[in-house]
Amino acid sequence: MTKKLWGGRFKKEMNKDFYRFQQSIQYDWRLGMYDVFHSLIHIRALVHTNVLSASEAYKLERALADILKEIQSGEFRYHPGSEDIHTEIQNRLETRVGEIALKLHSFRSRNDQIAFDVTFFCVHEAQRIFALLLALQANLHELAREHKHDFFIGYTHTRRAQVIRFSQYLLGFESMLHRDQHRFDDFAKHTYVFIGSGALAGSYIKSEDYTKAITRFTHTYCKHLPVKISLVKNSLDNVSNRDTAIQFLSHIATLQMHLSRMAEDFILYSTPEFAYLELPEEFCTGSSYMPHKKNPDFLELVRGQTGRIYGNLTALLTTMKGLPSTYNRDMQLDKEPLFSSVDIIKEELTLMAEFVKGLNLNRETVAAVLKDETLYATEIAEFLVGKGVAFRKAHEIVGKLVMHAEDNEVRLTDMTDNGLKTFSEHLNKKVLHKIISPAFAVSSKRSLRR
Amino acid sequence: MTKKLWGGRFKKEMNKDFYRFQQSIQYDWRLGMYDVFHSLIHIRALVHTNVLSASEAYKLERALADILKEIQSGEFRYHPGSEDIHTEIQNRLETRVGEIALKLHSFRSRNDQIAFDVTFFCVHEAQRIFALLLALQANLHELAREHKHDFFIGYTHTRRAQVIRFSQYLLGFESMLHRDQHRFDDFAKHTYVFIGSGALAGSYIKSEDYTKAITRFTHTYCKHLPVKISLVKNSLDNVSNRDTAIQFLSHIATLQMHLSRMAEDFILYSTPEFAYLELPEEFCTGSSYMPHKKNPDFLELVRGQTGRIYGNLTALLTTMKGLPSTYNRDMQLDKEPLFSSVDIIKEELTLMAEFVKGLNLNRETVAAVLKDETLYATEIAEFLVGKGVAFRKAHEIVGKLVMHAEDNEVRLTDMTDNGLKTFSEHLNKKVLHKIISPAFAVSSKRSLRR
Amino acid sequence: MTKKLWGGRFKKEMNKDFYRFQQSIQYDWRLGMYDVFHSLIHIRALVHTNVLSASEAYKLERALADILKEIQSGEFRYHPGSEDIHTEIQNRLETRVGEIALKLHSFRSRNDQIAFDVTFFCVHEAQRIFALLLALQANLHELAREHKHDFFIGYTHTRRAQVIRFSQYLLGFESMLHRDQHRFDDFAKHTYVFIGSGALAGSYIKSEDYTKAITRFTHTYCKHLPVKISLVKNSLDNVSNRDTAIQFLSHIATLQMHLSRMAEDFILYSTPEFAYLELPEEFCTGSSYMPHKKNPDFLELVRGQTGRIYGNLTALLTTMKGLPSTYNRDMQLDKEPLFSSVDIIKEELTLMAEFVKGLNLNRETVAAVLKDETLYATEIAEFLVGKGVAFRKAHEIVGKLVMHAEDNEVRLTDMTDNGLKTFSEHLNKKVLHKIISPAFAVSSKRSLRR
Amino acid sequence: MTKKLWGGRFKKEMNKDFYRFQQSIQYDWRLGMYDVFHSLIHIRALVHTNVLSASEAYKLERALADILKEIQSGEFRYHPGSEDIHTEIQNRLETRVGEIALKLHSFRSRNDQIAFDVTFFCVHEAQRIFALLLALQANLHELAREHKHDFFIGYTHTRRAQVIRFSQYLLGFESMLHRDQHRFDDFAKHTYVFIGSGALAGSYIKSEDYTKAITRFTHTYCKHLPVKISLVKNSLDNVSNRDTAIQFLSHIATLQMHLSRMAEDFILYSTPEFAYLELPEEFCTGSSYMPHKKNPDFLELVRGQTGRIYGNLTALLTTMKGLPSTYNRDMQLDKEPLFSSVDIIKEELTLMAEFVKGLNLNRETVAAVLKDETLYATEIAEFLVGKGVAFRKAHEIVGKLVMHAEDNEVRLTDMTDNGLKTFSEHLNKKVLHKIISPAFAVSSKRSLRR
Repeated sequence: MTKKLWGGRFKKEMNKDFYRFQQSIQYDWRLGMYDVFHSLIHIRALVHTNVLSASEAYKLERALADILKEIQSGEFRYHPGSEDIHTEIQNRLETRVGEIALKLHSFRSRNDQIAFDVTFFCVHEAQRIFALLLALQANLHELAREHKHDFFIGYTHTRRAQVIRFSQYLLGFESMLHRDQHRFDDFAKHTYVFIGSGALAGSYIKSEDYTKAITRFTHTYCKHLPVKISLVKNSLDNVSNRDTAIQFLSHIATLQMHLSRMAEDFILYSTPEFAYLELPEEFCTGSSYMPHKKNPDFLELVRGQTGRIYGNLTALLTTMKGLPSTYNRDMQLDKEPLFSSVDIIKEELTLMAEFVKGLNLNRETVAAVLKDETLYATEIAEFLVGKGVAFRKAHEIVGKLVMHAEDNEVRLTDMTDNGLKTFSEHLNKKVLHKIISPAFAVSSKRSLRR
Repeated sequence: MTKKLWGGRFKKEMNKDFYRFQQSIQYDWRLGMYDVFHSLIHIRALVHTNVLSASEAYKLERALADILKEIQSGEFRYHPGSEDIHTEIQNRLETRVGEIALKLHSFRSRNDQIAFDVTFFCVHEAQRIFALLLALQANLHELAREHKHDFFIGYTHTRRAQVIRFSQYLLGFESMLHRDQHRFDDFAKHTYVFIGSGALAGSYIKSEDYTKAITRFTHTYCKHLPVKISLVKNSLDNVSNRDTAIQFLSHIATLQMHLSRMAEDFILYSTPEFAYLELPEEFCTGSSYMPHKKNPDFLELVRGQTGRIYGNLTALLTTMKGLPSTYNRDMQLDKEPLFSSVDIIKEELTLMAEFVKGLNLNRETVAAVLKDETLYATEIAEFLVGKGVAFRKAHEIVGKLVMHAEDNEVRLTDMTDNGLKTFSEHLNKKVLHKIISPAFAVSSKRSLRR
Repeated sequence: MTKKLWGGRFKKEMNKDFYRFQQSIQYDWRLGMYDVFHSLIHIRALVHTNVLSASEAYKLERALADILKEIQSGEFRYHPGSEDIHTEIQNRLETRVGEIALKLHSFRSRNDQIAFDVTFFCVHEAQRIFALLLALQANLHELAREHKHDFFIGYTHTRRAQVIRFSQYLLGFESMLHRDQHRFDDFAKHTYVFIGSGALAGSYIKSEDYTKAITRFTHTYCKHLPVKISLVKNSLDNVSNRDTAIQFLSHIATLQMHLSRMAEDFILYSTPEFAYLELPEEFCTGSSYMPHKKNPDFLELVRGQTGRIYGNLTALLTTMKGLPSTYNRDMQLDKEPLFSSVDIIKEELTLMAEFVKGLNLNRETVAAVLKDETLYATEIAEFLVGKGVAFRKAHEIVGKLVMHAEDNEVRLTDMTDNGLKTFSEHLNKKVLHKIISPAFAVSSKRSLRR
Repeated sequence: MTKKLWGGRFKKEMNKDFYRFQQSIQYDWRLGMYDVFHSLIHIRALVHTNVLSASEAYKLERALADILKEIQSGEFRYHPGSEDIHTEIQNRLETRVGEIALKLHSFRSRNDQIAFDVTFFCVHEAQRIFALLLALQANLHELAREHKHDFFIGYTHTRRAQVIRFSQYLLGFESMLHRDQHRFDDFAKHTYVFIGSGALAGSYIKSEDYTKAITRFTHTYCKHLPVKISLVKNSLDNVSNRDTAIQFLSHIATLQMHLSRMAEDFILYSTPEFAYLELPEEFCTGSSYMPHKKNPDFLELVRGQTGRIYGNLTALLTTMKGLPSTYNRDMQLDKEPLFSSVDIIKEELTLMAEFVKGLNLNRETVAAVLKDETLYATEIAEFLVGKGVAFRKAHEIVGKLVMHAEDNEVRLTDMTDNGLKTFSEHLNKKVLHKIISPAFAVSSKRSLRR
């Protein structure tokens, strides 16, 4: 145990095992940068409050700048005995600037710091996820562009449904991700990072002094980090606000759900049985027993990670259920689920963007399946409607036609005009030859042309 | 089983038990209104496509208007043998207008209808929840206004922390609900209801014909129901979009989390041990065995419903995990969790708004607890900082002072000047008498004054 | 509102909306049978306690027997104004036998009844699920027996792995279900249904009187319903025990996970691309737009229901988190998740047992795929090990051989002896012809022969 | 990347980021001991199969014994470039014994190893949790014994209900934990660890050779580690069995739910408002802002950890949903949730056992509350039943009596005989003085005496 930020009224030393149980430094060190930001604002507010002189503030800021540099360079290593990141930074400052450091914690509470740090983290990471989403979407777009003339087979219920374009298929995923992108963008733009709650009841520092300090910080630090910082509105609420983190975890969960569906499709379409897609070999692995195997491990792991990411959302929701108002120590446990989901989703997005670039469409298999005439059943029914047949009747006619062809193992385009006429007077060989064509099928989707 | 919307290519009758297993009419009848809306737009689009004549359209619209009236009056009763609401309405139309009805389903699919219906439902209900949230917030505001001069005790870790105002306490909840309110508002304003997906690949109806039909419908129906309807962008995505519903369920879950915390506080504060609040008796119940009991059942049920509402979010997330792209039948199972969460949250909000009006503050108990001098420990430390003591030292001094008072069972304000001086030269009787006062404590929270 | 079991100390009428909010009769009517059982035991205990005379007891028992008959015949209809099933039955008794009924509730509490009823329900339903599991397993066995000579393709990572027997494949599911069966069996056999808790602190009725009453009841009613009833051990625990229900929901969730995997396999293997299985048509449905479709809706719904069933487990776990000891009203909300999961799983098991009987193996497709030589790569490596090659080397040799064959589009069995020798001196045409055979592959799995 | 167990058929190197993404060594190193066990059995089986000579086996076993010693002493450090623990151990063996090591992986697959390792881990940890549960129960028992004559107040709905004994209260928790203990015991006793699945289809090693190897291992290693090891029954099922891990996580979740309720009670009862319990100071922490605070952080963290533990269960259930049969890579993600839940629950149990020893009952507060006469309302009603009043009437009489006393701020024992008679002829001063006594109340719970 290193020096703690409390303890005057305690007689007994903490139980050592309990000390370890309640430590958070092993994960909250990741909030170091945001914690320094809090201190930088706080120092200026303390100058306005006359708790710190200009020169004291300067010394503290210089020392914090050093710590910040360490953090940003990735060289920051925490003392494993520290209670948490706030204590860690406080202790470092004491080592560097001595007694002045003891003033820094005036009129603020770790409750205020942690709400600030975690919210800042969420907003910052939402911006990063947004950027990764754009990159993945761009790669899907590029692939779609390359294949703009290629047909593909649209499925519902994992059963062949209708002919589509391969680009339409790929952009279906892009369309899902587009909603995700909006969610992260909105989140990053509309979430406020608050300061000034004290422990729960507010701080002794005047609102105008906080405001000046915030403005100064924002000018210096938030040019490339567009985060909204503001004086707290309701301090009791703010120290226990974890719904911002929950919303973030929920956006990640939804995005993850989309990735799991993408993964499922690619696993399926790259089986030798479907054989529509070839996966980039550098994202596959083999078996330790079966020498011939090439397995879609990347996709399986993406699908599987849905467990962790849903679990993390469940975790925070559960922890927050039924807690009394304001801060409770339970809330410390928001961080591991949060960090876990952020790390996983960023890795997945980075890899998926690369993976998608290596996808290959197997045009031969697609061409073979496009000969499956049932794929055009809907277009035949639509043709009949054009001839005045009520749709429900047209649907029934074509249903029977398809069944007939199946039972007799005959192709529709091989049926005679007479044979076809028994199903509908409007049907004949010529008509069917026109309809049963990928180009015709795709062009008849007139709701999509603009 | 009533008439189905498919079946031409089938030889065997469905297994009767399976028919029941897959029916959805028992819950999706609630989407009736939105399904009629879809048909109203679709009819106009079919007129432009020359599938329906003006007079046919008129007959269908008249019949649909009748059904709509039935639905809106609450008199709509579905046929328990119907497969789903789409089939139910189709069959009714057939009964009323005969053969024309068979044309209605031209160029559309239940996949398109259900995506339309469910999204419309979510947006509509988000508006209702928004309104209920406003009402609850208004009642909290009113209560806060009535108590603007009352002090209260702020807690952290379920332990007395600092003196606050009762209004500040109440507005802490209002502040949580404010974020919820924003979420539902954003959701209702920015969610699009799409039409025109066909089964997955798009429809034969031209985009401009859909657009004309949408515009007409919006003019007629969306004046008091401001919902954004639009031609679909990616049809493959749209028929399997359930992330809109997930986002809605997630917003409800977060709101529910807030209600569970409110409930927890009120349960606690109305125990005879705390005795800060008196609950409205009309929201309590008794025991069948113990004649003296008056239990906070309403609050317990609100807290307990968190289970159902989290469970409903889990349900839809789980169902969607790893599904192949476009529509799969699994997606039908979005509705029961959705309806369940919407019903529960609306009931809770309605009752909570009423409940809050009946809350009574027990000023006597509060006054007695305000005499607990440890509540002012922070203000004493702040005073010392004003005298130039570094905060970490001031914190330690007061910690020891509090411990001393506790060990010797003496009140701080009863200690002699000499006694106080042994802790800090700045402390004396007069100073403590000034600081140890609710009014002083509250006025020193200068970050909150604006 | 009908007559309630409490109210003497209340001045105000309950808020009507709150009354509806807290009612449970709309779902807990399903516990009617078990609630009658509780009363039957209780009556005898009251006779021993001299609260009821023998003739009073007889009248009450006769009236309860009538209610029981109504329940068991499915004709029981509850009064929608009743608060809960306990009140409903109490009120009915009052109607039938008058004032005597007012004595029935002596020395017992609804807390005791509900713990009894819910536990009894769980045990009873566990027995039913056990029976349904046996039936499904029997059908899988029967199918396996019919196909005992048929080969099949074993997959890992949704990629062809090794040749297996179709029976081995089917019994893989049976093996999962076997563990489930054990869980339900253990649960039904080792779960106690307790009586005698009073409200929380115990009852005025003597332990020996309870014991006599329990013994009598067990003799009469539990011959065909082997449920262990016992006098409560710790009453405080018993009135708030919901872990029994959680365990039951968790067993159901695990079983459901297995069913979802079975469904996934059958969906996949019945696609035209895999084409290993033909599904019974009576468990498929069509599309309202695409006339040719035959969709595996039953399987999709089974897979999708995993959401509901996981959600129900989450719901109860969440509700129970952090509740103070003994009974809290939150616990009432255990019932809907419980009933929902029980209903779904029973329907699924019933239908799946029927479904499995209609499964058809497509021997032709299987035979075609068995010609895929990579399926025998492991056996070739095993052969090399038999010749003294270290396994890791054998693995590498065969990996390269397979790659060679793929790159040059040549079949292994068409390679020359010389060609093969470049990979390993032990390989030649004759050897490969022996190894590359389903019968050989299956017979080499010597760990499975007993 | 270190040497992998596969790769012959691959042309491209794995993507480096993907390699990291799919590594599991950073967590599955914890399975090292069990993986060595698998190898020890496997070596003997290979000797019987004539793949290893006695002297080769001896060398491998000696090398494994060294690794095992390293693991058991806590000195084992994995190479961060290894793919997983199986590869790590294989590579170490190669370094130590050279080429012989290449034979070790004959006829087995990581799929078999991982199923063996994880199941063994679960059983082993279940035994440890069982032991920790016993210790906690023992401490609760001891505390109950010390307080066997102390009264306490039983609550329902967080409202005073009836007088109980403090020992009865404590044993309520013991009773919950008793069911947990049974679950872990059953789990440890009835779970089989299987070997011999090969990759999925079985292994080339004969069943009798496996059996001999298992018997030998069991004799040597399982004396103090009573784990059931057996030859696999259905290999396809075994390589994808994760329901054993799910059941284990579910048992942990239930136990955690109980701990969360214990924590909630202790937080509540140690507030200054309730003041029944004093917490051991060494398990509390202070505030960085408010010098007087002593917070029940240990209990809050226990309550909060419910999130993680429920989340871990959700995670594995979600990951397993809808996976095709046999092994899929998703299953690798079972380990982190599993390890997380096991670590948390063991820490909690260890600390809680210690914590409970430091709990102090505040007899003065209890004594003061025992004077609350409403606590005896039930006993008064019971008395009336003894006098022949029907219970529902007695209930109503006492309800009104309690209300009267409350409204007139009079104690029941101060009421006159005449005053009492207006409520019931059986009531008088003397009677009430007898009933309103903790000893009388507790002794009237006759269902609990045995």
